Amino acid sequence: MTDPLNVCLEKTSGYDPPESAYSVGWTQPKRVVLADRDNPLPLDCGVNLYPVTVEYETYGALSKLKDNAVFIIHALSGDAHAAGWDADWEKDNRPWRRNRPGWWDQMIGPGKAFDTSRYFVVCANLLGSCYGTTGPWENDPLTGKPYALNFPVITVEDWVRLQVRLQDYLKIDQLVSVAGGSLGGQQALAWAINYPERIRSAIVMAASSRLTAQGLAFNAVGRQAIMNDPCFQNGNYYESGPPASGLELARMLGHITYLSNQSMEGKFGRRFQNGSQPCYRLNNEFSVESYLEHQGRAFVQRFDANSYLYLTRAMDYFDAAASTGGDLAKACAAIESRLLLIAYSSDWLYPPRDTRAIARAMLANDKPVSFIEIPSDYGHDAFLLETGQTTPLVESFLKKV
Amino acid sequence: MTDPLNVCLEKTSGYDPPESAYSVGWTQPKRVVLADRDNPLPLDCGVNLYPVTVEYETYGALSKLKDNAVFIIHALSGDAHAAGWDADWEKDNRPWRRNRPGWWDQMIGPGKAFDTSRYFVVCANLLGSCYGTTGPWENDPLTGKPYALNFPVITVEDWVRLQVRLQDYLKIDQLVSVAGGSLGGQQALAWAINYPERIRSAIVMAASSRLTAQGLAFNAVGRQAIMNDPCFQNGNYYESGPPASGLELARMLGHITYLSNQSMEGKFGRRFQNGSQPCYRLNNEFSVESYLEHQGRAFVQRFDANSYLYLTRAMDYFDAAASTGGDLAKACAAIESRLLLIAYSSDWLYPPRDTRAIARAMLANDKPVSFIEIPSDYGHDAFLLETGQTTPLVESFLKKV
Repeated sequence: MTDPLNVCLEKTSGYDPPESAYSVGWTQPKRVVLADRDNPLPLDCGVNLYPVTVEYETYGALSKLKDNAVFIIHALSGDAHAAGWDADWEKDNRPWRRNRPGWWDQMIGPGKAFDTSRYFVVCANLLGSCYGTTGPWENDPLTGKPYALNFPVITVEDWVRLQVRLQDYLKIDQLVSVAGGSLGGQQALAWAINYPERIRSAIVMAASSRLTAQGLAFNAVGRQAIMNDPCFQNGNYYESGPPASGLELARMLGHITYLSNQSMEGKFGRRFQNGSQPCYRLNNEFSVESYLEHQGRAFVQRFDANSYLYLTRAMDYFDAAASTGGDLAKACAAIESRLLLIAYSSDWLYPPRDTRAIARAMLANDKPVSFIEIPSDYGHDAFLLETGQTTPLVESFLKKV
Repeated sequence: MTDPLNVCLEKTSGYDPPESAYSVGWTQPKRVVLADRDNPLPLDCGVNLYPVTVEYETYGALSKLKDNAVFIIHALSGDAHAAGWDADWEKDNRPWRRNRPGWWDQMIGPGKAFDTSRYFVVCANLLGSCYGTTGPWENDPLTGKPYALNFPVITVEDWVRLQVRLQDYLKIDQLVSVAGGSLGGQQALAWAINYPERIRSAIVMAASSRLTAQGLAFNAVGRQAIMNDPCFQNGNYYESGPPASGLELARMLGHITYLSNQSMEGKFGRRFQNGSQPCYRLNNEFSVESYLEHQGRAFVQRFDANSYLYLTRAMDYFDAAASTGGDLAKACAAIESRLLLIAYSSDWLYPPRDTRAIARAMLANDKPVSFIEIPSDYGHDAFLLETGQTTPLVESFLKKV
C-alpha cells in the first residue's frame, strides 16, 4: 500500500523547470510603497517609519470574490521569491537566482500543496531584509545615506502589521491562510493572535511561540561575530565593503542549528576532506568544515550583514505570550482561525515540544487545531526539505478551511 | 532513607578553604623536562618534539610500594591545578587562582572521591596548553620566538604518550587509575587502549570514543572566530596582543555546548538584562547574552588563543577506533583494566548513547565495565558539577580495583 504521506514525493522532488506544468513559471517581483509621511508604519519600538517599500510576488489568480488568497511568509534568509523562476534576476543583480527556483518551489505551484490553480499566493520580503523591502541597506531620507544601525529595531509583530497593509492594498478582506516555517511560522502565529478576523487559517511549521534561551544564545554569538569584524564599521560598510568573514561565521553557526546531529552524522560523519588519513592541520581537514565554510561564503554573496542583525533580533524578541504575562492559552484565546501546526522530530532550534505547547494552548480554549510531528532527520531545515510528507497535510487542511 | 548517591553532597558542595580537613590545602606546581634532544617526544604528526616541559601537581603521598597513584586528566580549558589552593598564584601571575581552588577540588582531597589520604593523585597540564607545559606560546629553540602556528598539531594519543613519560619519571609501574571528564575522559580511554599494562583501571566521564560531526562543526566555528580576528596575525600575536574578541566568541560558543537547553532555560530563560520590558537594541538585552559575554571575557584573561586552536583540534582528531577500521570492539580488545563509564543525561556534546557504545564494545570482549548514566540537567558541565552523584560511584569503583 502506498504511504499516504509520501504520495507527493515524486512530484515534488527536484526542481520543476519553468516550462513544467507544475511550475508557476517565470516570475517578476513587484514593489509597492505601503507607508509614507502621511501614513507611517508604527513600530513596537516606538518609531513611526516611512517610507516603507515592500517587494512581493504573486502566483495564481485572485478570484473575483477575492476569497482565495494565501500569504506565504519567509524565514530568516528568505525573500519574496517563493516559487518559480525569477525573470529579472539579471536586471536586479541577483545571480544566485539564475539556476534556482524560489525557496518553496516544491510547495507552491499548480497541483502542489499551495495549489496556484486554486489559490492566489502572495509572498512579501520582510521589513529589514535585503531583497527589495526597506531595510538598513536603504538610504535614510533624513541623511541620504544608508540607515545602517540607525534603522529601528523591528519585531515579528511589526512584520505582520506591514503585511496587513499589503492585504489592504490588494483589497482582500480575509485570507484563506497565512503559512510559514521557522520565523515565518512565528509570523503566521502572530497573524492568528493579532488579526483574528483577517484570516481563516494559519499554518505554523517548525516554529514555536518563542525562542529558547539556547536559541537566543546562538543568535547572540552570530551577531557578535558580525560586529567583531573590523569591516563592520558600526554598520557603515556599504561603501567600504561588508563584514564578510563575520557574516560567514554567523551563517556557519546558524547552519549547525538548522541541521540535526543525525543529518550531520549521515551527511559528513567524521570524513576527511582529502583521503582517509589525517593531514594534521588546524583547518580544512574534515568534510563538515569545508561544507560549513562553503555555506558561509555563499551566504555572504547574497545577504546583508545588517539585515542579519535585525532579523535575528526580531526572532529573539518574539514571544506570543508576552502581552498575557507568559500565559500562552490566554494569548491564543483571541484566535478565531483554524491552526495547523507541523513540527519535525529532529528540529532542535524550534523543538516539537514547543510547537506542541501551542496546540495545548489552543485546546485549552477549545479552539480548532491540528498538530503533527513529522518524523525527520533533517532538523529545522525539514520544513524546506520534507515537502513530500508536508504536502498532503497542507492540502487536506486547506480543503477544510 | 538517605539516597546513597547523595550522601557526599554536603561534604562536597561549595569550596573547602585551604585549612579545611577536606582540602589538600596549599599547593605548588612542579615542572619537569620530559623530552630533550636525545630523547624527543614522537608525535602522531611525525614531528619529534623537544624540549618538552610538563607542569604538574601532586596531592597525597606515594606509598612505598608505589601502588597508590591516580592520574587525573584535565579537559580543554583545565590545568594541572586540580585541587587545593595555589600558593604560587601571585609569583606565576595567575590572578584568577586567587579566590578559587583547583578545578576538581570537590572530587580530590581527604575523604573525597579521589581520597588523598589513600591515593597519590597526580595532574599534569596538557602539551599545547598554556599553564606551564610546553605549547605554542613557548619559545621555539630554533627561532628564539614563540612557536605560534609552527607548533606541531597534537593528538590525544600524544598527550597520553607524554603522561606515560611522567609516570616513568615518577617511577610508578602501574597506576591505580587514570580519570578524567570530557577531553580528559578521552585520554583515560586512550590510556586503557594504548597502555593496558600500565593502569589497573580507567574512569571515563562525559566522553566518548569520538566527537560527533556536530561537535566537529562547533569546534571549526570557534577556531575560525579566532583566526578571523585581525589581532590573530597568523598566531604571532604574543607581542602585539591577543585575538581577544575572537577567543571570547569561541568561548561563548563553547559555553553553549557545555550547558544543556534545560539548564539555560532554568538559569536564564528569556529574562531581560534590565527590567521587564524590552529596550529594543541589538545586543545586551537578554540575561543569557550578558552571561556568555562575561564568560568569554573572563576566559580571555586566562587562556591562550593558539592553545585553544591546538586543543580543540586534538579533540577533533580523537577516534579510539581509527586504527581498527572503525571497529570500537576491536579497539577495546586491547584493554586489560576495569572501566568505569559515567555519562550525564543532558550532555549533548558527548551524548550518553556514545559513552554507552564504549560499554557495548567492552561487553563484546567480555571485559569488566560499569556504565552509568547520571540524571542531570547540567549538560556536559555535569562532570564538574554533579560531584555529589559522581563521588560514591568513583569511591566504590576504586575500592574494587
